[in-house]
Amino acid sequence: MKSSGILTVGSELLRGSVLDTNSHFISCRLEKFLIEPKIKITVPDVKYAIKRELKRLLKEVDIIFITGGLGPTPDDLTAEALSEALSLPLIKYEEEEKKLLSKLKKKNLPINEYNLKQIYLPEGVSVMDNKYGTAPGFYIKHNGIYIFCMPGVPSEMRSMFIDSVEGILEDIAGRAEKKSLIVKTIGISESALAELIYNSGILDGYEFSMIPKTDGVHIEIILKDVAEVSILKDGLSKVIGSSIYGYDEDTLPNIVMDLSVSNSFTLSCAESCTAGLLSKLITDVAGSSKYFKGGITAYSNEIKSNILKVRNSILREFGAVSEECARWMAEGCRELFKSDFSVSITGIAGPGGGTPKKPVGTVCLGISTPNFTKTYKRLFSGSRHDIREKSAYNALNYIRIAMLNYRDQKPLNPQLL
Amino acid sequence: MKSSGILTVGSELLRGSVLDTNSHFISCRLEKFLIEPKIKITVPDVKYAIKRELKRLLKEVDIIFITGGLGPTPDDLTAEALSEALSLPLIKYEEEEKKLLSKLKKKNLPINEYNLKQIYLPEGVSVMDNKYGTAPGFYIKHNGIYIFCMPGVPSEMRSMFIDSVEGILEDIAGRAEKKSLIVKTIGISESALAELIYNSGILDGYEFSMIPKTDGVHIEIILKDVAEVSILKDGLSKVIGSSIYGYDEDTLPNIVMDLSVSNSFTLSCAESCTAGLLSKLITDVAGSSKYFKGGITAYSNEIKSNILKVRNSILREFGAVSEECARWMAEGCRELFKSDFSVSITGIAGPGGGTPKKPVGTVCLGISTPNFTKTYKRLFSGSRHDIREKSAYNALNYIRIAMLNYRDQKPLNPQLL
Repeated sequence: MKSSGILTVGSELLRGSVLDTNSHFISCRLEKFLIEPKIKITVPDVKYAIKRELKRLLKEVDIIFITGGLGPTPDDLTAEALSEALSLPLIKYEEEEKKLLSKLKKKNLPINEYNLKQIYLPEGVSVMDNKYGTAPGFYIKHNGIYIFCMPGVPSEMRSMFIDSVEGILEDIAGRAEKKSLIVKTIGISESALAELIYNSGILDGYEFSMIPKTDGVHIEIILKDVAEVSILKDGLSKVIGSSIYGYDEDTLPNIVMDLSVSNSFTLSCAESCTAGLLSKLITDVAGSSKYFKGGITAYSNEIKSNILKVRNSILREFGAVSEECARWMAEGCRELFKSDFSVSITGIAGPGGGTPKKPVGTVCLGISTPNFTKTYKRLFSGSRHDIREKSAYNALNYIRIAMLNYRDQKPLNPQLL
Repeated sequence: MKSSGILTVGSELLRGSVLDTNSHFISCRLEKFLIEPKIKITVPDVKYAIKRELKRLLKEVDIIFITGGLGPTPDDLTAEALSEALSLPLIKYEEEEKKLLSKLKKKNLPINEYNLKQIYLPEGVSVMDNKYGTAPGFYIKHNGIYIFCMPGVPSEMRSMFIDSVEGILEDIAGRAEKKSLIVKTIGISESALAELIYNSGILDGYEFSMIPKTDGVHIEIILKDVAEVSILKDGLSKVIGSSIYGYDEDTLPNIVMDLSVSNSFTLSCAESCTAGLLSKLITDVAGSSKYFKGGITAYSNEIKSNILKVRNSILREFGAVSEECARWMAEGCRELFKSDFSVSITGIAGPGGGTPKKPVGTVCLGISTPNFTKTYKRLFSGSRHDIREKSAYNALNYIRIAMLNYRDQKPLNPQLL
């Protein structure tokens, strides 16, 4: 197993103007290789700081990934820092000049000294093509340590990593067998899960962590042998039961899509407090148009009654945040979109709008199926953002359960859902 | 100015199962204080690694922020690592035990050894309350260096930071005057911006960076004096013009909300390729219900024609991704939701579905106002995610321009938009 370190460069990452997603992306991709990320470090656009951390990492790891600081502006200093740290002069890469000029022309960008700066790289590096941007990336093997420098713009870095870096990593380190098993649960607390797991003894001797997220608590187990996977899945499923919705790369939007497509189910959604988030999560998955007919954000009562046909008496008597309203919304939505299943969400995401009877976090959900409509009332904690995400993911989980029941022709008593 | 370092703890952060948003949140909040974040480090749940980086930071910065590793499970090791690094024994905090037991009861969580572990903390620390979770945070001043330990769950960390940490930071370091000016542009490339700025000389002598994002290129300028803000804004606005949509905390959803609310405009949206993302971005802002009536995800042609009343002949002749379809969608949406303004987005987000004439990234947008409808055709680059985000933010920018024009009673010739 090779060790690696990730160095992300950018004052904007330390000032908070930009959220670093690059190091996370790299970590995810390294799962496929016999490479362990041991540390991540973020430094500002300060040459001294870049050099210092680079020198530290050269002593500690086998592979160094650097992102950021390759662009056209004077605060882009990664090539210079690397040049000084490794004592390699910056030289003009003629071949890159041609590529750059043709890119600038194609993108209708100016040819100026800022753009041309991007083709001066440390002597002896191998260049990596940038599919989406102008700054080339590069890598070098120095005293046995590999150093990869990639741009900071996420789409540019990602395609470069996949297209150029991964092939080299495969040669250097080799592909990994599955290193971990992630078990994804929803609807059960972290400590309740911990109690179930420790009491059962099923993970004794395993290194594992429990990670609470808005789509449930994930249990990440480090495998000793890939052959253990099915035994662990069986055992955990006996202990935790139907709160497990998936493993590893599974996500609720993916699972609902697979279930829908393989059974030719169609889906639509009616959202109030989540207001497009559920629709967005569903359609993050390429191919979702195969089953998702569409959705409506019914943010005002007027829209709930005019478009989704929620009776005004329901809104008056129970309010928009009620199981009754969720039922009408789900049924109205199923009617409007002519889908097999429909899901509705109406709640109080906060920070304002709560009352003693319906505090912030109160969310009502409805699932309308070809046979019946079932509603749920939940109280989610956290910020506006958290409450909206938890609402959307729990809605997807209820849809999953309803589709599974329908597919398996379970007794259609809603109480059994 | 005090220096600070952020240490995020969690194997899941290095393995990629979790994206670290905590260090970004802390960076953003530190903007308000005379505290400069100098470095961010992420280590796994390994006691030795936590101790080593803690000791390093103790030598380099005045304030250390640690997140993660305070939870109920055996891989939560921050308190232990701190206890060893500072030679302070872990002791039971009686007062915290009472609070914990009452929280567990209220949340219907089991009382077990895992949960009780959370009240053993290094001797001499001051405890910080956890509003949303069970693990208390704590801080200590050690040889003049402040160390703050907070939970890793983002909502718990955030409320603890705001409620408990910031008051102490104000005492230690003091509030900062405005330290930077962020100028937000959309519709102009990074290198074209660089050329405009360097040629004008307006930022000569300033440290600044340009950050390309899906909502445009942000220019972040380090201020020498807060009095420079209005001069810089005036100067940059002359050089860059109407591509500037806002400053600092301004976001397109916020700007459109302010513009709508102050002019009593209402808005609705019809989305195809963004499929809820625009509606989600609009409603991320608390208070958006004041002007946003709702939206529709019209993912299939059937829904475009049945609900938004796009003529079948339009879909047949021009296709769903066309300016003609965007026009009908925007107008149909305005009709359906009875809003003053309406925006539509229809495009090819990829990765599949592109053709030579309409490659992936082709997006058509429509803006329907009380006076006319205007359409746009754009080609966005990047991943599915990027194309969807760029589409949604550009739609918001077109809405902004249309609302400004309408408010200022500009000549209503759509060519002038």
